Amino acid sequence: MAMKAGRVLNLCLVWLLMCATLQKSADCQGWNKMLLPQPCRNLVLYFHDIIYNGKNAENATSALIAAPQGANLTILTDHNHFGDLAVFDDPITLDNNLHSPPVGRAQGLYLYDMKNFFSAWIGFTFVLNSTDYKGTITFAGADPALKQRDISVVGGTGDFLMARGIATLSTYSVEGDVYFRLRVNITLYECY
Amino acid sequence: MAMKAGRVLNLCLVWLLMCATLQKSADCQGWNKMLLPQPCRNLVLYFHDIIYNGKNAENATSALIAAPQGANLTILTDHNHFGDLAVFDDPITLDNNLHSPPVGRAQGLYLYDMKNFFSAWIGFTFVLNSTDYKGTITFAGADPALKQRDISVVGGTGDFLMARGIATLSTYSVEGDVYFRLRVNITLYECY
Amino acid sequence: MAMKAGRVLNLCLVWLLMCATLQKSADCQGWNKMLLPQPCRNLVLYFHDIIYNGKNAENATSALIAAPQGANLTILTDHNHFGDLAVFDDPITLDNNLHSPPVGRAQGLYLYDMKNFFSAWIGFTFVLNSTDYKGTITFAGADPALKQRDISVVGGTGDFLMARGIATLSTYSVEGDVYFRLRVNITLYECY
Repeated sequence: MAMKAGRVLNLCLVWLLMCATLQKSADCQGWNKMLLPQPCRNLVLYFHDIIYNGKNAENATSALIAAPQGANLTILTDHNHFGDLAVFDDPITLDNNLHSPPVGRAQGLYLYDMKNFFSAWIGFTFVLNSTDYKGTITFAGADPALKQRDISVVGGTGDFLMARGIATLSTYSVEGDVYFRLRVNITLYECY
Repeated sequence: MAMKAGRVLNLCLVWLLMCATLQKSADCQGWNKMLLPQPCRNLVLYFHDIIYNGKNAENATSALIAAPQGANLTILTDHNHFGDLAVFDDPITLDNNLHSPPVGRAQGLYLYDMKNFFSAWIGFTFVLNSTDYKGTITFAGADPALKQRDISVVGGTGDFLMARGIATLSTYSVEGDVYFRLRVNITLYECY
Repeated sequence: MAMKAGRVLNLCLVWLLMCATLQKSADCQGWNKMLLPQPCRNLVLYFHDIIYNGKNAENATSALIAAPQGANLTILTDHNHFGDLAVFDDPITLDNNLHSPPVGRAQGLYLYDMKNFFSAWIGFTFVLNSTDYKGTITFAGADPALKQRDISVVGGTGDFLMARGIATLSTYSVEGDVYFRLRVNITLYECY
């Protein structure tokens, strides 16, 4: 209840005190940066991507649907993935086990966008439907080939109404071109 | 003028009162949830999607542009839409009549992402250009096969500068694979 | 430090004064619009798109990857681009010279969505990695064929954590279907 207001008031007092002390220093006149609020929610979830390879239609949770002229749509075999577009509908779990009961689905696209190494642009939504979480979180951003990388949380619905923040992605257990798992550490700074 | 400040000040007072009464209760120390502001704008609009079926190039407002290997790009005929990607540029109207004067265009993509029933991931923008509204509203999220579902408003320009909120989608009048109409009930919580 | 709080406090005082004067006027009771904060950051950057035309695989930074049935994926030759989907990984520079040292990459997609003239829906991320800027900014919106048009900044990471605002795009130097340059004037209203 009224927690944002509380935080704002606290900041007001800190600021009043500072400005009384510092007498119109640059810090009190420059309006360029805002104070980052404390995170209001942190969630760690995993999603599991089983890539269609022409033989696993029953189990596959993602498929390539577009690529530049002349590329092979069936399998991610060539070194150069530039332009490959994949759609996915992957199970989300609370731990790193593909066979744990899913708490929702990760749905969206990844677009491999770099010519010389693995990198993607991603847009997707977590559709959560469990006892603890009901609602969606939508993410977008660049997904470079780094051990950890941040993307943006751009919105949410239900329990995550108006969510904003970031998510740190880490890839685990890449099994050739057939399976990978992403750990998603979500830090929200706006929660309603 | 200064309305957000007014709201914030009101919350400050409520909070001061509460905390004076409750003496450092958990509610005054937990910063996890913020008070959801009142909606600052509500809009109900409709958009109309006429799907290209190989014969209606003149009237069609959307087309399939990608699908997994072996799928039929011309028509949405098979039961399994997984991976189909459609682009649209649909007229927006104030009522549910396709022939009403359009107030703008809904432009973007939908990506069918579920193997067993109709579901999509969507990203699109309302480009509004009427006497009442000039500007854009951008949406993203999961669009499951439910009677009503919420997606996120992730940004806006013009009259809708910095807009945030949610939109409740309802599908009406599905005419086979050729026409459907979406009702979009937009609730904004940030308006500038 | 505490600058948002300072701004909020200022607004509080303005509002108090106003409401004390106006005695419960409509302005003090209507919560529909918030005061737009001053921009907290402005950046002007350029990105350069070299479109794959079947002969420039070494230099190209974007490629068409999907189009409606029967369209030509190799070159943007036909008048009707409806449904063409392109992926890009373009260098970003501080000035308008393609050969200036890049400060990052613009990665994402554009989707040509209008039947009669050039217009697109775009989703992309600036991945900045220079002495001055480290982080990402994610954009989404409609990109109509206007001299200048605004799209939304929907999120950011690193130096641009939780960024929100708009970007004004202007296209320069279109060289047939092989090269164009976009000037991106980014105005942020939330900076942390």
